[in-house]
Amino acid sequence: MAQEILRSHFAHLYPITTRWHDNDVYGHVNNVVYYSFFDTSANRFLIEECGLRIETSPVIAYVVASQCEYYSPVAYPGNIEVGFRVKKLGNRSVSYEFGVFSQKEQACALGAFTHVFVERESGRSVSIPEEIKSQLLKAIVPIV
Amino acid sequence: MAQEILRSHFAHLYPITTRWHDNDVYGHVNNVVYYSFFDTSANRFLIEECGLRIETSPVIAYVVASQCEYYSPVAYPGNIEVGFRVKKLGNRSVSYEFGVFSQKEQACALGAFTHVFVERESGRSVSIPEEIKSQLLKAIVPIV
Amino acid sequence: MAQEILRSHFAHLYPITTRWHDNDVYGHVNNVVYYSFFDTSANRFLIEECGLRIETSPVIAYVVASQCEYYSPVAYPGNIEVGFRVKKLGNRSVSYEFGVFSQKEQACALGAFTHVFVERESGRSVSIPEEIKSQLLKAIVPIV
Amino acid sequence: MAQEILRSHFAHLYPITTRWHDNDVYGHVNNVVYYSFFDTSANRFLIEECGLRIETSPVIAYVVASQCEYYSPVAYPGNIEVGFRVKKLGNRSVSYEFGVFSQKEQACALGAFTHVFVERESGRSVSIPEEIKSQLLKAIVPIV
Repeated sequence: MAQEILRSHFAHLYPITTRWHDNDVYGHVNNVVYYSFFDTSANRFLIEECGLRIETSPVIAYVVASQCEYYSPVAYPGNIEVGFRVKKLGNRSVSYEFGVFSQKEQACALGAFTHVFVERESGRSVSIPEEIKSQLLKAIVPIV
Repeated sequence: MAQEILRSHFAHLYPITTRWHDNDVYGHVNNVVYYSFFDTSANRFLIEECGLRIETSPVIAYVVASQCEYYSPVAYPGNIEVGFRVKKLGNRSVSYEFGVFSQKEQACALGAFTHVFVERESGRSVSIPEEIKSQLLKAIVPIV
Repeated sequence: MAQEILRSHFAHLYPITTRWHDNDVYGHVNNVVYYSFFDTSANRFLIEECGLRIETSPVIAYVVASQCEYYSPVAYPGNIEVGFRVKKLGNRSVSYEFGVFSQKEQACALGAFTHVFVERESGRSVSIPEEIKSQLLKAIVPIV
Repeated sequence: MAQEILRSHFAHLYPITTRWHDNDVYGHVNNVVYYSFFDTSANRFLIEECGLRIETSPVIAYVVASQCEYYSPVAYPGNIEVGFRVKKLGNRSVSYEFGVFSQKEQACALGAFTHVFVERESGRSVSIPEEIKSQLLKAIVPIV
């Protein structure tokens, strides 16, 4: 872990309850499950702040790349918070960054993924709609 | 739905946050996921109220039967509460009942499963330890 | 386990590969995951034999009740086969039965669920389309 | 996709059956699920080729970093193969690379993760055991 990653580095904090079967056979939340935390947090932002309607919006977002570094384990039944911020905003895509926080001040994991916006019908890449873009802009957190 | 199922019929209410991928292709929380709500709630009771230590307790509990009736859909990003009560307490096994509550007063689903207590090492069925049994007794809710 | 449940009692056998995180902290496939085996098998039948198109069919099927009895554990990396048969065919709903088979002749688990057919748009219950019903009929296996 | 990624670039190909609920609300295998394909494939290699015993081996492997690029969607009910190769072998850690193949010759996704070997009891980082290391060496595929 090269640097300190704190809750204050993120634009939003989303609480997530862990589940019995998030833990794998080694007793910690499985590495795969962290990506569901990221997916859940970014889409919650898109739904709550940007007006995305999962069922009907003509423009939706697909994940084209994702990554995660795991620093210290978390485990059910402990609950977590996921920090969310926009890392890089392009014309047709956006990259988010996520911090997974358990009880400690420091993040347990740092993740990221990139959303490309597409027409639901055609799957073709399109510009990020203005009302979404303006909200994404507000979630950029300058790292001091 | 033959009868009214309300939050007040349960001994404990456990909040659970839904996740993006709880929804399946039809836009609602997939029927499978409800069982993870039950698993998570019963084990939370065993951990918090009965002292179960997932990693080290010499006696653990295995699921031998489960069931669920689905009345109305729930969907991410809506959050839920899971009602938990002990339905039937035997010498070596216990059956729980679970209500899934979204915004409405009425349950969206009613589930149940049966735990058999076993020695972790041998997998052999054993009597429910006394300290667990006494707590399970308190979670029996007489349906008036 | 009251009776013998064998592969020959089912109309179709669907192979399913287990996954690392199907196992839970106790080292076996988690009870929840069995329902994903059932869901996967029944929908595969509907897609392959009955022409269901997940994305576009105007009539789709919702799960209204499900259950499972667990007889003996299965675990990653062992693979399984899921036996599928129609147990009860009504006008608007169908109940399936599923056997989970690992290496032994006897089933490790016996599950069931009920599909109600609905209009995708309205969610209203409808009669099972004829082309689906005729295929479901063929998957009824008389238990001798 | 900068370069061609083919089945022949990998040391092993592991077939994986997709599941109904691998698809998310947009109709494709959810981005999170790909990581379960990677986890399943790497651990299968460790179990089958390197003698890892999930329940008892004194040295186990934890994931410390993972990533994936998604090129084209896959969806239930189509099945997949996961290509597995060792990308970088250190003294205490190993990085794997994974290709996800559907019907086409080209990979649909390219993933990677890094395993650090630890003592099960203490969680302390240790050298990769010799019998595992010698097998990992064989799974290095020189990219021509």
